[in-house]
Amino acid sequence: MSSHLLSVDSLSRDDVDHLMRVAARMEPIAQRRKVTRVLEGAVLGNLFFEASTRTRVSFHAAFCRLGGSVCDTTGFTFSSMAKGESLYDTSRVMSGYCDAIVMRHPEQGSVAEFAHATNVPVINGGDGPGEHPSQALLDIYTIHKEFARQGRSLKGAHVLMTGDLKYGRTVHSLIKLLALYGPMRVTLVAPPGLEMPHPLIEHVARQGLDVQVRESLAGDFSDADVVYTTRIQKERFTAEMTEGFSLSRDYTVDRAFMDGRCNDHTIVMHPLPRDSRPDANDLDVDLNGDPRLAIFRQTDNGLTMRMAIFATLLKVDDLVEKDMRDVPWFVPRTFGVDDAGA
Amino acid sequence: MSSHLLSVDSLSRDDVDHLMRVAARMEPIAQRRKVTRVLEGAVLGNLFFEASTRTRVSFHAAFCRLGGSVCDTTGFTFSSMAKGESLYDTSRVMSGYCDAIVMRHPEQGSVAEFAHATNVPVINGGDGPGEHPSQALLDIYTIHKEFARQGRSLKGAHVLMTGDLKYGRTVHSLIKLLALYGPMRVTLVAPPGLEMPHPLIEHVARQGLDVQVRESLAGDFSDADVVYTTRIQKERFTAEMTEGFSLSRDYTVDRAFMDGRCNDHTIVMHPLPRDSRPDANDLDVDLNGDPRLAIFRQTDNGLTMRMAIFATLLKVDDLVEKDMRDVPWFVPRTFGVDDAGA
Amino acid sequence: MSSHLLSVDSLSRDDVDHLMRVAARMEPIAQRRKVTRVLEGAVLGNLFFEASTRTRVSFHAAFCRLGGSVCDTTGFTFSSMAKGESLYDTSRVMSGYCDAIVMRHPEQGSVAEFAHATNVPVINGGDGPGEHPSQALLDIYTIHKEFARQGRSLKGAHVLMTGDLKYGRTVHSLIKLLALYGPMRVTLVAPPGLEMPHPLIEHVARQGLDVQVRESLAGDFSDADVVYTTRIQKERFTAEMTEGFSLSRDYTVDRAFMDGRCNDHTIVMHPLPRDSRPDANDLDVDLNGDPRLAIFRQTDNGLTMRMAIFATLLKVDDLVEKDMRDVPWFVPRTFGVDDAGA
Repeated sequence: MSSHLLSVDSLSRDDVDHLMRVAARMEPIAQRRKVTRVLEGAVLGNLFFEASTRTRVSFHAAFCRLGGSVCDTTGFTFSSMAKGESLYDTSRVMSGYCDAIVMRHPEQGSVAEFAHATNVPVINGGDGPGEHPSQALLDIYTIHKEFARQGRSLKGAHVLMTGDLKYGRTVHSLIKLLALYGPMRVTLVAPPGLEMPHPLIEHVARQGLDVQVRESLAGDFSDADVVYTTRIQKERFTAEMTEGFSLSRDYTVDRAFMDGRCNDHTIVMHPLPRDSRPDANDLDVDLNGDPRLAIFRQTDNGLTMRMAIFATLLKVDDLVEKDMRDVPWFVPRTFGVDDAGA
Repeated sequence: MSSHLLSVDSLSRDDVDHLMRVAARMEPIAQRRKVTRVLEGAVLGNLFFEASTRTRVSFHAAFCRLGGSVCDTTGFTFSSMAKGESLYDTSRVMSGYCDAIVMRHPEQGSVAEFAHATNVPVINGGDGPGEHPSQALLDIYTIHKEFARQGRSLKGAHVLMTGDLKYGRTVHSLIKLLALYGPMRVTLVAPPGLEMPHPLIEHVARQGLDVQVRESLAGDFSDADVVYTTRIQKERFTAEMTEGFSLSRDYTVDRAFMDGRCNDHTIVMHPLPRDSRPDANDLDVDLNGDPRLAIFRQTDNGLTMRMAIFATLLKVDDLVEKDMRDVPWFVPRTFGVDDAGA
Repeated sequence: MSSHLLSVDSLSRDDVDHLMRVAARMEPIAQRRKVTRVLEGAVLGNLFFEASTRTRVSFHAAFCRLGGSVCDTTGFTFSSMAKGESLYDTSRVMSGYCDAIVMRHPEQGSVAEFAHATNVPVINGGDGPGEHPSQALLDIYTIHKEFARQGRSLKGAHVLMTGDLKYGRTVHSLIKLLALYGPMRVTLVAPPGLEMPHPLIEHVARQGLDVQVRESLAGDFSDADVVYTTRIQKERFTAEMTEGFSLSRDYTVDRAFMDGRCNDHTIVMHPLPRDSRPDANDLDVDLNGDPRLAIFRQTDNGLTMRMAIFATLLKVDDLVEKDMRDVPWFVPRTFGVDDAGA
């Protein structure tokens, strides 16, 4: 694995396998049964030039759980960049203070440019329309874990992706990682105008994914193992696009869909946040408490996977297990009030 | 004690006694003579959706002093909430990252709604006009400690509350806690229009408090043990309210009042911040350096009480004493230049 | 050394010698070969009332590397100050929460006022046009270290200062520290209107510095050991000032200047950030990768010197060496991709 994590494109199947193996070792810490001090004295520079509370907190907590310290920076601009400082200088200066850097930035390519100037590991926390590789990694880790609970492997899975497949960067990155684990079936269902780009479909098909495009969520999906839903951003719709079909609930995954067209072990995923406003028609809250709803196990896995990423890039992946000790503080058996059903 | 701390209404006398006992055990750490690592590996989500530097820093420092790590979030909105995420989802997601959550939010009831979705301990750091229970707890702990120094107990005390008794949520919460420790006398002195609400007076009177209402600070208060002052927010005064009486200094506690109408062991408290601008007529700075001025001992106790709250909710309250070690770094005997007189 | 660090004026040569000696002991930690827990349980209040990402992160990381925890506050106003709280109250309250305080504030003198109310060590992180003593200390430490690598001492050095010598507070503070280490030669080259104030030149000359003023960077500087450049802030130029001379590149230090007029061991320093926009004519990027460019070693030394400041003020300067242990995590041999040449 390279010294930075900038894009899923640079990840081999061996890399992903390794990160998932390390994440599995992290579970006792993520589940709050163990603590470690393996990153003691290390400082993370957590640079968020674009607001993203959950991703920032997830990286922050992951580094802390490994025993490190975190210095957050939030805001739309770095004060010295406003004075004309180059990304090269900013990167080199921060490298003297921090042992690892997470960076989210609204401009595509900026995180890679930042990483170019430094030997300190840099993790892309999202660069605008570009990449957000840790999200794709936690997604595939979630599928892997859920399948393992069912006694299955990723091979031969059937994944249904629905919602905004054009602009949603998470589905783009996830389908690339799934292609490393083929043969596998992927069914795509998107509103007109929000379909997944053809070059990407052709790319993953060449790698062995069996990709099918369907026009709606009508019909039978009882052999789907995963329903991966994304938020449809209405504001991107033009008048022509909305004409001729009702956006109302055509692409909404809810309990009726899951009970009527899927099966009892189909899991439901979502990159979150989900829009719970009544007219949003995002993933329905009527699935809350349903054990098939994996969205919170998925965000929990985000912590675990980010711990694995830090441990691997900082080369303590082999030390963590040896260093674990019992947690001295109270551990709730479940984090959310609905978790008992899971 | 319940798993969250949302309101003083849920606290029994046993709960308050317990928290004050645990706080007393924390004193060596708060006074910087000892350190502990009892919350090692634990992460606090410190969510301040409303500005409050001192309260945020107090919770932050309390968690750190117990050996934990803190991830602060400040700002008027949570970025994912702006995208339509429900408090339910936000709460459950944060629960996967954090072992305890402090939340301040401008809307009354929001912290309770947040707590409803999670099994991770949630502490209300102030929900608008609602509750701020850790402030009331540090207030009663301060009275308890000051009295103990004088060889007395809370029973039979006489507490004078003055200033804005209508809108000040701290006096509302404190009088409820005092009612658990009756019989006790409470005298209320407020400008017309800012009196304590009658239902609250009746409520605590039924519990055994002897509540007296006086119109001004004129007269004798030499048997008052505590003068609890609050800031009068002039901006809330209408023209009629200010007519007929001078707001100038009628409700100002200063050295002349303390020397002339109180006694030499009466302590002065204030929830802070106090407005030191000349025309504010808040608690006077001419008491700085007077050992009766307990306002900084009071904020110091805030750290200690918040440590006790964390230790109790995370169930390490019995472990702290065993885990204490000597502090390796320099400890100033007094924190402020005026502390020597205390 | 006094209990606060507010100004270079309060530092004796013994103080600076001590801080440089302690900084040298910190190198194994700053270079990520060792970790320490000597400030375990200590909390730093890092108060930045004016934006300065790099300085804030540098102080933050320095405290963490010594084993302490940090609570950052950023923003243009302290929320309770907006409610009329005095610096005296704010300072005393924060002292109860924190074991050390770094404060940056736009108003000259405010940090000293803040320090006046507390026994907890306060470090001036920059008070507007006032002081920024840790910058001057890291600057002289850099010169000391670079000279030591060349087998020389500070005595008899020749330092060229160029750029904005009127408003740049870093050169004012640095020249005062250099005066403690004379006899030494300092040559000043500034655009008309941006010359160093005469009273300051006379002050350091009386202390034994041999100060020469030259009008331009033309001519020979082959005996200069250090070129200290600062950013010229064009926005401060009036029309008359720019008339009669070209600002274009007259005061720009670049490879041509270094190769043609200096020698192969002259080091180049800059307080950073440097303005890399094409028309800024700040220190040229064509020196990137040149081993004489010491600007990133200089910022790296900022971490080390700030660790030394904390260790000295908190009186653990003698404990750090005993407490060091091997770092468990990966250490890049060099922080930046260009460091290999250094």
